[in-house]
Amino acid sequence: MKDSQAHLLAYSYDATANFQAMPDLVLSPKNTEDITEIVKICAKEQIPIVPRGSGTNLAAGTVPNQGGIVLLFNNMNKILELDKENLTVTVQPGVITQDLSIYVEQNGLFYPPDPSSMKISTIGGNVSENSGGLRGLKYGVTKDYVKALTFVAPDGEVMKLGGKLAKDVAGYDLMSLLVGAEGTLGVITEITLKLIPLPVTKKTGIAYFNSMEDAAKTVSAIIANRIIPVTLEFMDKGTIGAVEDFMKIGLPREAEAMLLMEQDGNDEQVDEDIQKMIAIAEENGATSAILAASEKEADILKTGRRAALSALSRKRPTTILEDATVPRSEIAKMVKAIQEIAVKYDVQINTFGHAGDGNLHPTCLTDVRDKEEMERVEKALEEIFQVAIELGGTITGEHGVGEMKAPYLEWKLGASGMKLMRNIKQSIDPQNIMNPGKIFAKEMKKRLVIHNG
Amino acid sequence: MKDSQAHLLAYSYDATANFQAMPDLVLSPKNTEDITEIVKICAKEQIPIVPRGSGTNLAAGTVPNQGGIVLLFNNMNKILELDKENLTVTVQPGVITQDLSIYVEQNGLFYPPDPSSMKISTIGGNVSENSGGLRGLKYGVTKDYVKALTFVAPDGEVMKLGGKLAKDVAGYDLMSLLVGAEGTLGVITEITLKLIPLPVTKKTGIAYFNSMEDAAKTVSAIIANRIIPVTLEFMDKGTIGAVEDFMKIGLPREAEAMLLMEQDGNDEQVDEDIQKMIAIAEENGATSAILAASEKEADILKTGRRAALSALSRKRPTTILEDATVPRSEIAKMVKAIQEIAVKYDVQINTFGHAGDGNLHPTCLTDVRDKEEMERVEKALEEIFQVAIELGGTITGEHGVGEMKAPYLEWKLGASGMKLMRNIKQSIDPQNIMNPGKIFAKEMKKRLVIHNG
Repeated sequence: MKDSQAHLLAYSYDATANFQAMPDLVLSPKNTEDITEIVKICAKEQIPIVPRGSGTNLAAGTVPNQGGIVLLFNNMNKILELDKENLTVTVQPGVITQDLSIYVEQNGLFYPPDPSSMKISTIGGNVSENSGGLRGLKYGVTKDYVKALTFVAPDGEVMKLGGKLAKDVAGYDLMSLLVGAEGTLGVITEITLKLIPLPVTKKTGIAYFNSMEDAAKTVSAIIANRIIPVTLEFMDKGTIGAVEDFMKIGLPREAEAMLLMEQDGNDEQVDEDIQKMIAIAEENGATSAILAASEKEADILKTGRRAALSALSRKRPTTILEDATVPRSEIAKMVKAIQEIAVKYDVQINTFGHAGDGNLHPTCLTDVRDKEEMERVEKALEEIFQVAIELGGTITGEHGVGEMKAPYLEWKLGASGMKLMRNIKQSIDPQNIMNPGKIFAKEMKKRLVIHNG
Repeated sequence: MKDSQAHLLAYSYDATANFQAMPDLVLSPKNTEDITEIVKICAKEQIPIVPRGSGTNLAAGTVPNQGGIVLLFNNMNKILELDKENLTVTVQPGVITQDLSIYVEQNGLFYPPDPSSMKISTIGGNVSENSGGLRGLKYGVTKDYVKALTFVAPDGEVMKLGGKLAKDVAGYDLMSLLVGAEGTLGVITEITLKLIPLPVTKKTGIAYFNSMEDAAKTVSAIIANRIIPVTLEFMDKGTIGAVEDFMKIGLPREAEAMLLMEQDGNDEQVDEDIQKMIAIAEENGATSAILAASEKEADILKTGRRAALSALSRKRPTTILEDATVPRSEIAKMVKAIQEIAVKYDVQINTFGHAGDGNLHPTCLTDVRDKEEMERVEKALEEIFQVAIELGGTITGEHGVGEMKAPYLEWKLGASGMKLMRNIKQSIDPQNIMNPGKIFAKEMKKRLVIHNG
């Protein structure tokens, strides 16, 4: 029974700590027509609809906090078409990201967005969250690959937006509005993605540092040298230790920071860029900077980086993963601020992330059962958001706003930006049935006053 | 005097044939604050505002068809900041596209969007139209490079959207909504653009064909061979002849079609791709396929291609340049359809354009004073739109909707898409003061019934 208590309970939470609410019903439609019917009934009866992929959301974006229907896509998980002439793939929303990635690579093509959750996340979820990933620096994020969408509006009308087109300026960019709207504007039921030719080769360099500053200087110097690597990932000491505990791959626990520097392309380009990056790391104080001995070794290291969250989450009962993002030039300042904030509030925060895009993942290890500690954690995270914004950054680089960050969104967008967004939401979903309570908070948090220096 | 009749007349039209309307006033604000004041007064008095760059618009997007104020950016034409660490440039809207392009290249960086009008068009115009260009196939269009905007909403509120960020999912993608909104949602007053490292080298191949089909087959085969060239431009026989008349650069008038195939990157990649493309052209029936002897020769040929519109426009009193766009796989069908439509309505249409992205520029040579001919021209263009849509394409790839294509927009978006767009426009500009009469037509054209085959 889809409405048994046990079944409903399974969809009362997602990957976000400390958020839970029961849905009234969980449905698994088979096609766009099913969804149209569901939406029309919900529109008539004013029932909330929460579209949900695999529930890997880290901002409580798929928690049904006003009850209603959780819409699953496990029966809409087919790859519908690979178009080798136009370099597109058309899929249903429930396709697992990694399955798609492997499928197109078997055909010599490449779908670059690679959120860390790609083994279990769905493409539909990625589109609704505009997911990023490790390769964002060179290849961009999910929205850069969405070419066409089939979409059921909150009144049940079906729209086909976009096409297999390199250029299309026929009206407002509705597609970009829907990508990253976190299910608050309607239900996406079919997705056409752009593909690119699979790069011929790739290589990975690894560098260890005695200080985060040296790692950050290396990142800046790589970009200043006109190299745009496919990934430029970093982990701090605590993360390195946690990954080593978890995976036993021989990482040096004494290092303060580690950079993974990967380049893809043709042989000449890859060799040149990797050698240059290793040299730049050495010039900027790396204690060790080497080329991964083999693709296997590189894969082990990348798997280690992808496992950072799992590794850290074994340390304490509760893990809160943030994704404050700053301009690349401000990474060193941001990492330093995070360390100071952790000390100030006496909380445990380890940081890893996508150094090349300034997309940091400060990860707070805590225990939701300890109310006093949780209050300090919340204050620390608020201060991290505030510093990110002061450095020209944002409260979320790739995880989305959901319910968790909604009270902070005005810090980034200002009252006028919020008003513009509310007007758009109201104009498309006047009854507020589409994933209500997400992005738009009832009350905004007051902006912090921080005395720097 | 800015309101002299002669001055007003100069801003009563843009590059679009057959559209004209007098503004009541032409203003040249100096900064965002000036624009805020103007917008507030216009909001109070319900006066239309038409933002205008250099007026190169080809869809009557900057014709003040309901009077009001034409807003110029000639006093807001400064490059404000080049940020070499974050690879961004921040400009006022009035900067000429080519000036920006040259400036960043002198600093070893690259701003890829290159609309054919780039010698005179402004960045503000490019952003409002989401302009494309010759390099769209490999590098995308203007929207792919907009990182931050300062924006004055129709109520005079100023917003700063985005940032120097590789990733940002804090709320709806308002920036993408404004890019390509053709000035109908507010006034953009400052723009931060993403830059990339300048490719080390580039080379150009030229191929001539006895038939458009062979040229189209070559385009498909290039992509199917996993090559994404920086430009893949074509001209038909009539265009080749017109360019040769105009520029005397030695083009073979007898060729039915010409392809310009340019690749950039590192030496190895460029050599490999160019040689492959030349071989593919030969395999697909090119009568001649060679590497441009020098960069100078390549530049002459590219200048010839960029001059196609000017060259054709010398042939008859009126030139109507279209930009129906189809999936790359449908180019041969589309070009054939255009030729048949020209015969059917006895009008003169030459086609050139961006073959790699399916973005065609069928160009109708006519005379607006000949009412009977103009009726046939209109019917021919309508049928071209219709065929483009039937092939999975769009009515405009890079020129925008403006006033000219507004009556056809529903053919692409459907009634539900139009409703969604109207709701958004209404929610942001309830008084309809921002470039009124553009994108949204009072009456839609009836969709044609075409019997194919």
